Amino acid sequence: MSYFENFMKANQAYVELHGTLNLPIRPKTKVAIVTCMDSRLHVAHALGLALGDAHILRNAGGRVTEDMIRSLVISQQQMGTREIVVLHHTDCGAQTFKNEEFQAHLERTFGLDVSDQDFLPFTDVEESVREDMELLRQSPLIPADVVISGAVYDVDTGRMTEVQ
Amino acid sequence: MSYFENFMKANQAYVELHGTLNLPIRPKTKVAIVTCMDSRLHVAHALGLALGDAHILRNAGGRVTEDMIRSLVISQQQMGTREIVVLHHTDCGAQTFKNEEFQAHLERTFGLDVSDQDFLPFTDVEESVREDMELLRQSPLIPADVVISGAVYDVDTGRMTEVQ
Repeated sequence: MSYFENFMKANQAYVELHGTLNLPIRPKTKVAIVTCMDSRLHVAHALGLALGDAHILRNAGGRVTEDMIRSLVISQQQMGTREIVVLHHTDCGAQTFKNEEFQAHLERTFGLDVSDQDFLPFTDVEESVREDMELLRQSPLIPADVVISGAVYDVDTGRMTEVQ
Repeated sequence: MSYFENFMKANQAYVELHGTLNLPIRPKTKVAIVTCMDSRLHVAHALGLALGDAHILRNAGGRVTEDMIRSLVISQQQMGTREIVVLHHTDCGAQTFKNEEFQAHLERTFGLDVSDQDFLPFTDVEESVREDMELLRQSPLIPADVVISGAVYDVDTGRMTEVQ
């Protein structure tokens, strides 16, 4: 069984509500949100975003990786964004493991040596936001005048709290 | 000026609607959606996802990169997902440039040689979905019984069309 067919059916209903729009490719607010894949965070709802407002980038943990920088450079240089929000959250999957034990689990499961791979776990969520804001500030591909903010999202209450 | 404060205000209103939930960390549908950062796609709305339903992973283009695999491995091995949907879309920013010209632009802008970096542009959106589904199927870290589907989202109509 697969959920894909359910999503396709739900999408048929969504199309009726959506109507035909012609929104520009460039995000209206010129903001890119860097956040986690977690299922309990619906970014557009939580931040009050309309269609067309902001780029939304999500990986495990909302971490600033090489691929996140690739995406942000395209967002900024091709589509004009000038602000970044780093949004991590409480009860994150990236807090449920350590690299060493996860690498060992993958070696047992797949018979592969992944001991050189960093899966980017963290323990303190405010600290992880600060680390990732700092990685953005230090990146030679992110202009110095880009506004960078950070926050933690509470998956139980839906509340964002700023991190400075 | 910064939009971050606007998002924080919108979030205050969202908190009232949200109430206190205690959803599990594991996504209910056991699905991870791999898609693009584009501002005209609100994934939860378009696929009918409730809070807690599915992991949502987004980068420039919705491409299967090393970081996307890192995130999917955490999603599957730590949080039990067993299905992946690759969702690219019409009028994508990844169709607005070629590597060579973008690398040259970055070298002019930042004085950096990024000629070895692939920014993962594409021309044919159905082909890019097929390529990324194939990368997932070939990954030694994704089990062979994981269900993989693909689709293209039309940013003007909101409609998803399956890619096989």
